[in-house]
Amino acid sequence: MTTDRLIYLPLGGAGEIGMNAYVYGYGPAGKERLILVDLGVAFPDMDTTPGVDLIFADITWLKENRDRLEAVFITHAHEDHVGAVGHLFERLGAPIIYARAFTANIARGKLAEYGLGDHVVTTASAWPETIKAGPFRVGFLPMSHSIPESSALVIDTPAGRIIHSGDFKLDETPIVGEPFDEALWREVSKDGVRALICDSTNVFSPNPGRSESEVEPEVEKLVASCDTGIFVATTFASNIARVKSLAVAGDKAGRSVCLLGRAMRRMIEAGQETGILSGFPKVISIEDAREIPRENLMMIVTGSQGERRAAAAQLARGKHHGITLGEGDTFLFSSKTIPGNEKSVISIINNFSQMGVDVIDDTAGRYHVSGHANRPDLARLQDIVNPQIVIPMHGEHRHLREHAKMSMEKGRMSFVAVNGMMLELTGNAPKVAEYIETGRTYLDGSIQIGALDGIVRDRIRMALNGHVTVTAVIDEDDEALGDPWCDVMGLPETGRSGVTLVDVLEQDLSQFLGRADAKTMRDDDKLEEALRRVVRNSAQGEIGKKPEVTVVISRLA
Amino acid sequence: MTTDRLIYLPLGGAGEIGMNAYVYGYGPAGKERLILVDLGVAFPDMDTTPGVDLIFADITWLKENRDRLEAVFITHAHEDHVGAVGHLFERLGAPIIYARAFTANIARGKLAEYGLGDHVVTTASAWPETIKAGPFRVGFLPMSHSIPESSALVIDTPAGRIIHSGDFKLDETPIVGEPFDEALWREVSKDGVRALICDSTNVFSPNPGRSESEVEPEVEKLVASCDTGIFVATTFASNIARVKSLAVAGDKAGRSVCLLGRAMRRMIEAGQETGILSGFPKVISIEDAREIPRENLMMIVTGSQGERRAAAAQLARGKHHGITLGEGDTFLFSSKTIPGNEKSVISIINNFSQMGVDVIDDTAGRYHVSGHANRPDLARLQDIVNPQIVIPMHGEHRHLREHAKMSMEKGRMSFVAVNGMMLELTGNAPKVAEYIETGRTYLDGSIQIGALDGIVRDRIRMALNGHVTVTAVIDEDDEALGDPWCDVMGLPETGRSGVTLVDVLEQDLSQFLGRADAKTMRDDDKLEEALRRVVRNSAQGEIGKKPEVTVVISRLA
Repeated sequence: MTTDRLIYLPLGGAGEIGMNAYVYGYGPAGKERLILVDLGVAFPDMDTTPGVDLIFADITWLKENRDRLEAVFITHAHEDHVGAVGHLFERLGAPIIYARAFTANIARGKLAEYGLGDHVVTTASAWPETIKAGPFRVGFLPMSHSIPESSALVIDTPAGRIIHSGDFKLDETPIVGEPFDEALWREVSKDGVRALICDSTNVFSPNPGRSESEVEPEVEKLVASCDTGIFVATTFASNIARVKSLAVAGDKAGRSVCLLGRAMRRMIEAGQETGILSGFPKVISIEDAREIPRENLMMIVTGSQGERRAAAAQLARGKHHGITLGEGDTFLFSSKTIPGNEKSVISIINNFSQMGVDVIDDTAGRYHVSGHANRPDLARLQDIVNPQIVIPMHGEHRHLREHAKMSMEKGRMSFVAVNGMMLELTGNAPKVAEYIETGRTYLDGSIQIGALDGIVRDRIRMALNGHVTVTAVIDEDDEALGDPWCDVMGLPETGRSGVTLVDVLEQDLSQFLGRADAKTMRDDDKLEEALRRVVRNSAQGEIGKKPEVTVVISRLA
Repeated sequence: MTTDRLIYLPLGGAGEIGMNAYVYGYGPAGKERLILVDLGVAFPDMDTTPGVDLIFADITWLKENRDRLEAVFITHAHEDHVGAVGHLFERLGAPIIYARAFTANIARGKLAEYGLGDHVVTTASAWPETIKAGPFRVGFLPMSHSIPESSALVIDTPAGRIIHSGDFKLDETPIVGEPFDEALWREVSKDGVRALICDSTNVFSPNPGRSESEVEPEVEKLVASCDTGIFVATTFASNIARVKSLAVAGDKAGRSVCLLGRAMRRMIEAGQETGILSGFPKVISIEDAREIPRENLMMIVTGSQGERRAAAAQLARGKHHGITLGEGDTFLFSSKTIPGNEKSVISIINNFSQMGVDVIDDTAGRYHVSGHANRPDLARLQDIVNPQIVIPMHGEHRHLREHAKMSMEKGRMSFVAVNGMMLELTGNAPKVAEYIETGRTYLDGSIQIGALDGIVRDRIRMALNGHVTVTAVIDEDDEALGDPWCDVMGLPETGRSGVTLVDVLEQDLSQFLGRADAKTMRDDDKLEEALRRVVRNSAQGEIGKKPEVTVVISRLA
């Protein structure tokens, strides 16, 4: 009688789009040998994470169990799958990392920022080759997506075969990288698949996905039709196929192609270094670009999501690398706007509008296709793989729930497992084995902090309420020496009474100190709390706001 | 020879969707008699205006010229047209305000918050009645929109007739309020219209707009099909027609209707008080709602944009007014998500997903129609009115530019006039008469502050960088008395060195003070700047962030 079990534990990605991190384990309960699939980032926003640089899944549990970790497998080179590798590598005890050539190339760049050498990432070949990792045997099964060499993982375990889809779409003509090969997938699945752990991001998109190759002729038509001024296009830097389509369209229209933005050049470079990208038109430098007639220039730039420091936003603010856009120029968003980025993107469009630049976005759906499988594609993959269980992953709760519903309507077992929910997949049906404490870790400047540490909460409060510093000097007899004083930051200078806010606060503080009892005056905590309360109430009356308060009490010894 | 001229000056709304405020003037240059059309608000966001309560157009110019202001006309009761009336009334010298009955009802509510009586707003009748205001004669021409009694203004001037469209759609079956009456509009326009100043918000929507009445049967079908649990729907509170459609659908399906949210009850009340709303089903109180079987209850709630304090968000967080949603319940967004609100709305949907509530949004376009004229509707109105000039208003720059382009393609004169650009409409073609300084005023707590005062900028900086308070006591000999100390807010407790951040900062400050020259120690400004620099550099090394710093120097006299 064996007590070995197969477990699945999402640490990130099952509850959001981003910061993917999924653990599989096999062995006796609590002693399973583990592998980790993907280790990505999510991106901060001003609403909930001001000042934060990146967001990772909280890997505390994995760190505590790192002696059981056999290896890390990276499915593809998008930031939300590979972005945290460099930051968390040491905490995971420097595990072996496997990825295919293009992904490895990008991952090595990230590790180099932490002074880690190329050897840290092992380049894996595609299926049918496999890699042994403890009780697992893992193969990289080629799959189409919006970045080259994206792969599903075929994870063979003593309890059966698991397929972890990674991010994918069913694209038989992806321009760059391997097409979806239905025959190969049928072959891999024919002896039975215990569970399909599957991308859920586009489960609400009702129509079959469109191929990357459908964009090419549309873009060519568009570029050919613009005969004045510079043609600028932006897209996701990692979508090498799209960058190529855009470049080819420019080339065919007799325009020289210039790539602007570090991330984009890095991706094209990686594509060329690993031999997956060929036929890319010759590119010119920005210096050369400045010298040629505008109507002979095509620029492909970063910043499709309105990122402040990327090329698109810079061009929208004015001169950038010596180029100023204006009347007669065209700017194409060959991309969709990710929810949350609307305001930044719209602000760029309005800036261009003021400059006289014609902006074309993808409202009509001609110049962009998604990299993810839509609802009918998800159904089609299930039909091909025919798994016993479907576990939705990579999605917000609404996506996971809808994906599970859809799977059950198709007569399959399915289960919504969110971050921290450890599922046992060995029994008749998936069941929750344990709940693991998970959450988010913030990279804040150069320091990793916990999402619940209260640090970011304090910053949000200062942003909403402003800040007051109160300084009071207390003498040897526990009496105030002179008047207390205030410094304010982020608050109006004068309030309702017409007197400056600082004066009103100082007056109320003085008055309070003049009347405070000896017990309060002796006790730093009590006094601090009392002074804070005076400031907050006084400010509420004057300006209708209760600021955050730092109280500094200096006692003369 | 007369030097009288007709001017148009947008102060808000011509560069954004929101805070509408348009001035018209007639008379000798610089002495024109003025009217103001609309006085609305825009809404703050965490990215650019954290802690701000409301945003108004900067009316400094109008305040300086308030002796020339004859009257204010409010086209309709949406917040972005009427929301600032109470806040700015006194600064404008308590002008006469005209509005139609429903709008006046809402406006009076806003003025009451400032202790202003009902008489401040004069109820106007619809066209053909007109109001004399200095050199102008103004009539309220009924127009359909997503709120009752929306009106265009017919502004007769010595230089010809102007039509200011207000917000509108061309709806011949709007359920509540007056339908668009093409014959009436032709009649009003037949003797020639000098300029049409026209809503631009939907200029990028390519298909003709749909009638409010198209939503009704879809909603009825949907509500009838849900036979378990509570049916909850949210929409814009001011869209009384929609609220009625939803309520009728609930009533027909045998559900009692309960309205949740102050704004929604207020709007329905105003509709009933002014006699424009009839046939609204009987509503029950939330107390009664709790007592009836779930499948007999329909709730219509505020918060379609994910507003934190509105009913939808409260229900998504758990028990609200004794009601907890769960499996079997349905939640309908009969609304679109305004750009910028996506994350809040999605967060509500995910919460409901976790609770097991089925959420239906308007992805398919069945349960919501827009209140604004789409591109073909804008063209149709131009054909009906046949104005000499089209001035696009109410839109971001991209909307105004596209609307002007479209008008010129139809062979009309058109001109993009943004906030602060005073146009003269008397000559052969519109021309810029003057640029007026404009901008935004923030309501921050109870105080109005300027967008460029730096107050909100400081708050944003604290949110991004955190805050450090440095206190140093300097004795009579200009030497440091004891060590300086630090208090931090919104920063990690420990940095790279593993020592607490405060200790590192204090040590570096001590070291600096120990070595500082006498000149620095004597000069408060110099010393403050130097201490700030020490903190910022030291923090950059420790935590990779340069915080905002308040330096408090106590000198013992």
